[in-house]
Amino acid sequence: MAVVPRTMMTRMPEKGVSDPAALHALLDAVKVAHVGLVADDHPLVVPTAMVREEDRVLIHGSTGSRWMRLLADGAAACVTVTAFDALVVARSAFESSMHYRSAVLFGRFTPVEGSHKTAALDTVLDKLIPGRAVEVRRPTARELAATQVLAMPIEQWSLRVSAEWPDDEDDDVAGPAWAGVLPMLSGYGAAEPAPDLRAGVEEPPSVRNLSRERPLTG
Amino acid sequence: MAVVPRTMMTRMPEKGVSDPAALHALLDAVKVAHVGLVADDHPLVVPTAMVREEDRVLIHGSTGSRWMRLLADGAAACVTVTAFDALVVARSAFESSMHYRSAVLFGRFTPVEGSHKTAALDTVLDKLIPGRAVEVRRPTARELAATQVLAMPIEQWSLRVSAEWPDDEDDDVAGPAWAGVLPMLSGYGAAEPAPDLRAGVEEPPSVRNLSRERPLTG
Repeated sequence: MAVVPRTMMTRMPEKGVSDPAALHALLDAVKVAHVGLVADDHPLVVPTAMVREEDRVLIHGSTGSRWMRLLADGAAACVTVTAFDALVVARSAFESSMHYRSAVLFGRFTPVEGSHKTAALDTVLDKLIPGRAVEVRRPTARELAATQVLAMPIEQWSLRVSAEWPDDEDDDVAGPAWAGVLPMLSGYGAAEPAPDLRAGVEEPPSVRNLSRERPLTG
Repeated sequence: MAVVPRTMMTRMPEKGVSDPAALHALLDAVKVAHVGLVADDHPLVVPTAMVREEDRVLIHGSTGSRWMRLLADGAAACVTVTAFDALVVARSAFESSMHYRSAVLFGRFTPVEGSHKTAALDTVLDKLIPGRAVEVRRPTARELAATQVLAMPIEQWSLRVSAEWPDDEDDDVAGPAWAGVLPMLSGYGAAEPAPDLRAGVEEPPSVRNLSRERPLTG
């Protein structure tokens, strides 16, 4: 979840962005999507790990999961991916807001099966933990059978970006209140080995590389 | 978004939690909710700032916003609040997962009006930026008229927490692969004053206090 560079900040309150590269950058930066569907005539929003592969998004889960079954059966879906980048501290409550980037994708998922499923699971793991797929054994037939992989094409989408400085009234700018932006930073901390890790097994490159991404200490 | 203390880690793959205090702690820690509703017979998921006040959640936005109007008119809603706490790096792809806390609230919103609206907006601002409401001027009648405030009682909810160490098969534990947890940390960086800030206006206590919450540098 990289912070929007200050140089991108505008005075527009919110901006619809139509550039697919900006959409892809957000989908690649944020690991958790919120998937909406209608279940029993009610809206349901479920958080789940999501990765982009070319022009589709992939999610996965247990074959026993009811919401994944509904999606696999073709339920209409809304996939929302949000990065919260900063608090906008304006001189009035009214103008106070947030910097965010938010993508909303509409469509339907279809199951990924057979050898495509194995390849998709490798992709999911390698997007979440780059380089990890070659560090672990291959999935077993039982594991593959217990896992549902779903793909949705990136076709209908919108992207909104809020990245402005506070846009206060002239009277407020001339007044006593402070204004500015408080960036939200995030990153991985130091890796913590499992209590049952065998002696001598060293931290692999995949984990070492992710753990180096520490914006607040940089 | 505080990280789950390692002492809370269990070997359970996921845990339903019924303690309201744990729910409140999550709602108070995470500033952005994903609100699901049905619009034009399709699911729609919108990210929005959310705060808890006692036994209700508050959201706000422009009176011109269509999704807020649908909610104000009584559309069924699902409010999902998620903290992504860590990557779980297991010895197999199958057991790899995430630490997260996720609350799902079901219900309907009602508009907050009149003097209750002003008080609710103070609450929203003070939960997002503690102490800020007394540092800014009062909202104008025009600003209040342009703002929709909605409240939903916290009645129907579920909370799921995943905070386990990797739960690998014995064969994998005896094998060559590493296992552990990569914590996700987040916090505010240093405040950046607006370009049009008047000379001599100092960073207020509200901003200074939030900016001190820097887990990665702590």
